[in-house]
Amino acid sequence: MDEGQRRKTLRMVPYALYLLGTRRGGSTSAYVVSWVTQASFKPPMIVVCMGRESHALSVVKETRVFSLNVLGSDQKDLAKLFFKDAAHEPGRMNGVAYHAGAATGCPVFPGLPAHVECEVVEVVEGENDHAVVLARVVAAEHRREARPLTTAEAGWTYAG
Amino acid sequence: MDEGQRRKTLRMVPYALYLLGTRRGGSTSAYVVSWVTQASFKPPMIVVCMGRESHALSVVKETRVFSLNVLGSDQKDLAKLFFKDAAHEPGRMNGVAYHAGAATGCPVFPGLPAHVECEVVEVVEGENDHAVVLARVVAAEHRREARPLTTAEAGWTYAG
Repeated sequence: MDEGQRRKTLRMVPYALYLLGTRRGGSTSAYVVSWVTQASFKPPMIVVCMGRESHALSVVKETRVFSLNVLGSDQKDLAKLFFKDAAHEPGRMNGVAYHAGAATGCPVFPGLPAHVECEVVEVVEGENDHAVVLARVVAAEHRREARPLTTAEAGWTYAG
Repeated sequence: MDEGQRRKTLRMVPYALYLLGTRRGGSTSAYVVSWVTQASFKPPMIVVCMGRESHALSVVKETRVFSLNVLGSDQKDLAKLFFKDAAHEPGRMNGVAYHAGAATGCPVFPGLPAHVECEVVEVVEGENDHAVVLARVVAAEHRREARPLTTAEAGWTYAG
């Protein structure tokens, strides 16, 4: 297989950027993800692929819940704040306001246009270097119309 | 859960459109899919979610291979041809030229900008109404630079 052609082909798949929020006990985190697709209408489910070595995955596997917060196209700078370890103060992560989601307690960011809260159904970890997390959507809030922040628009590449 | 808010949120996830090609014996088919994400860099893997009742899924589960052909942004009319049962003549499906992919024998459409060929690793079928097909990319060809045909650009909605 020509690796260059494979990379160029896989980079044609469009992705948006999200903050995936976790909570374990009183400890909250958020983690930028982009490999997301819907997987079912009834019941509503999504797949999120998460780095096998990530702290977020270990928490999600233990707690079986997460939030997925959709970044708006004007929130690239906000997304960048979450590439490093989160700085916490009460009700803020990296300076960004959040609260506990009603269904799962996972962090929800009211400044972002929309989010879902999810319960994990299955985690597939084989040879893949990202775990395939299949999860049921149990809560959702759409606060405002917005275009999502895509990796193309951000000028970031995470595929190939 | 507010169904309307859930639908609006899940419709923010960007999708492109693809022709998923199958071969069983001498019989080829192609099927429009959009729920695709990468799932691994090393080894390269993708997830494709396929309707549980679809003929394509039954063939993929049996043969364990498929092709995924990326539609270009100017190929909406071509995509539409594949919403109905395929009309076959030698080397053409719905009038569109194809040949057998080198790695899997699944149909590859040289008029489309790029494709990958894949071997199925795992199929997750639980309560989800689309099967989650995790597959390893074993071949790829990128023939020309093109923007992918997104569902947003096509004016089609398949999410929510």
